[in-house]
Amino acid sequence: MYFVTYQYASFSEAGVLSEDRQKVIPLSTIGMMLGRKLPETMVEFIQLENEAPIAAIAEVLREHPNMGIKKEMLNLLAPIPKPERNIFCLGKNYADHAQEIKHLATQEDVPESPIYFSKLSSSVTGPDSIIMSHVNATKQVDYEVELAIIIGKKGENISKRKAEEHIFGYTVANDITARDLQRKHSQWYKGKSLDTFCPLGPGILHKSALPLPFNLKLDCRVNGVTMQSSYTDKMIFDIPTIINDLSQGMTLYPGDIILTGTPAGVGAAQDPPLFLKRGDIIESEIEKIGLLRNRIQ
Amino acid sequence: MYFVTYQYASFSEAGVLSEDRQKVIPLSTIGMMLGRKLPETMVEFIQLENEAPIAAIAEVLREHPNMGIKKEMLNLLAPIPKPERNIFCLGKNYADHAQEIKHLATQEDVPESPIYFSKLSSSVTGPDSIIMSHVNATKQVDYEVELAIIIGKKGENISKRKAEEHIFGYTVANDITARDLQRKHSQWYKGKSLDTFCPLGPGILHKSALPLPFNLKLDCRVNGVTMQSSYTDKMIFDIPTIINDLSQGMTLYPGDIILTGTPAGVGAAQDPPLFLKRGDIIESEIEKIGLLRNRIQ
Repeated sequence: MYFVTYQYASFSEAGVLSEDRQKVIPLSTIGMMLGRKLPETMVEFIQLENEAPIAAIAEVLREHPNMGIKKEMLNLLAPIPKPERNIFCLGKNYADHAQEIKHLATQEDVPESPIYFSKLSSSVTGPDSIIMSHVNATKQVDYEVELAIIIGKKGENISKRKAEEHIFGYTVANDITARDLQRKHSQWYKGKSLDTFCPLGPGILHKSALPLPFNLKLDCRVNGVTMQSSYTDKMIFDIPTIINDLSQGMTLYPGDIILTGTPAGVGAAQDPPLFLKRGDIIESEIEKIGLLRNRIQ
Repeated sequence: MYFVTYQYASFSEAGVLSEDRQKVIPLSTIGMMLGRKLPETMVEFIQLENEAPIAAIAEVLREHPNMGIKKEMLNLLAPIPKPERNIFCLGKNYADHAQEIKHLATQEDVPESPIYFSKLSSSVTGPDSIIMSHVNATKQVDYEVELAIIIGKKGENISKRKAEEHIFGYTVANDITARDLQRKHSQWYKGKSLDTFCPLGPGILHKSALPLPFNLKLDCRVNGVTMQSSYTDKMIFDIPTIINDLSQGMTLYPGDIILTGTPAGVGAAQDPPLFLKRGDIIESEIEKIGLLRNRIQ
């Protein structure tokens, strides 16, 4: 099952895609068919935790395969347009990327423990939306395609064995980074958090369609040229390890978003370096989950 | 004028303190006297931006000096109990502190640019509340008294000259830190973000009572022993510089909280190191703004 947030005129709401992913069925419509009111926003739906009627929604979709509004009629937003907390991120979680940025890094090469940082929640932007180049603040805007985990259930000190229970699903993200600011401010926060620096989407693939462990191809293309291409099983710290470690002493909440790191091929590691400029098209794609297309402005 | 958020039974609301700081006057009461509805929460009040009736509230307080509920009858919460975005923080913004932690740091000593990181918004806790020791996650809980700026007006690329226009006021914070996690995860985020690791309060002193530039004494005491004692004019990057630099390419919003760094005297720099343990009382105090008292549990 594939969840999206869409905008129609000035109205935005959560919905699910039809099997062929060509049509959007509003959660409100499904709610009426189920005889119960469903939340209008994705975060509120996720916050239902175990009460979210996933099986019943799947049943409605199976029984009404032609239901829905054509996707072209709507504007897809980030599946969680305004996260309630900053985006959690992992640094250097693919060995080949840790290696390629060695000359840029001040810290150890391949980390022995996960490196966590955050992106400001308001940096989120949607599929098909623009990424601002912020030419007055940075000259080195770079791309990093990443698998994003969406947390589905509150928890602290979550065991690896129970990690999947705390996941709602997965989406595609690009951890856009101002390399000069990342260096200048020592800690990475500011260089990762400029407005529009976290494209997310197009939707959330529910975990029921993607049981752990899985291995998915992920790619990033700049103006049609493949720059990053790898597989999610190359992560140094896998998904259960991340959820277990991150939640030690720190409660995770439904709707939290965790970016799991990027593979080799970032612009800063090219010779000469390749930074994004106005007009560039960035395509971030993960097999089964979807394709995110953004233009630099 | 001094703003607080208080809890009475299960009900919480924003209010202001009387001149002698002994009584709380609910914003709702002042709203009735002004013939307009005022927001119930501090963040919503701050989000009124220039429409917040500061002068009119001051007038009401002057005219009714005996109005209010005795502070002891209520439970003060953090002035912004649930910030909408992570807490912005500066690292090494006092030269003496940058110096004392030299042996702990992997990066340059005294920074040439501000070092920004964040604390998870949900790490906020109130005055007189407990700080969890998280003994299973960390063995090295440390204190850092800091002046906190509360942003009062939305803005991007804010000039130094206009910085004060974007401030609502100031409060006291303690940037509680798990030193072992700060080191272990390279980036500081996780070690700064454990649940209850950001005591804040007791209230917000409105900027009208504290025009820039100012110089305030700040202290941190552990079980009555003064461990940190300095002045806010010893900051390397001053308040207008921080607001100008942080807002480049990144919009600041009303209700955002910025911790401005800590002076020398942290536990990790003591010989032998002094880490907090259950039962310890931490007092964080800034002249004119207030005293925050928390117990480690």
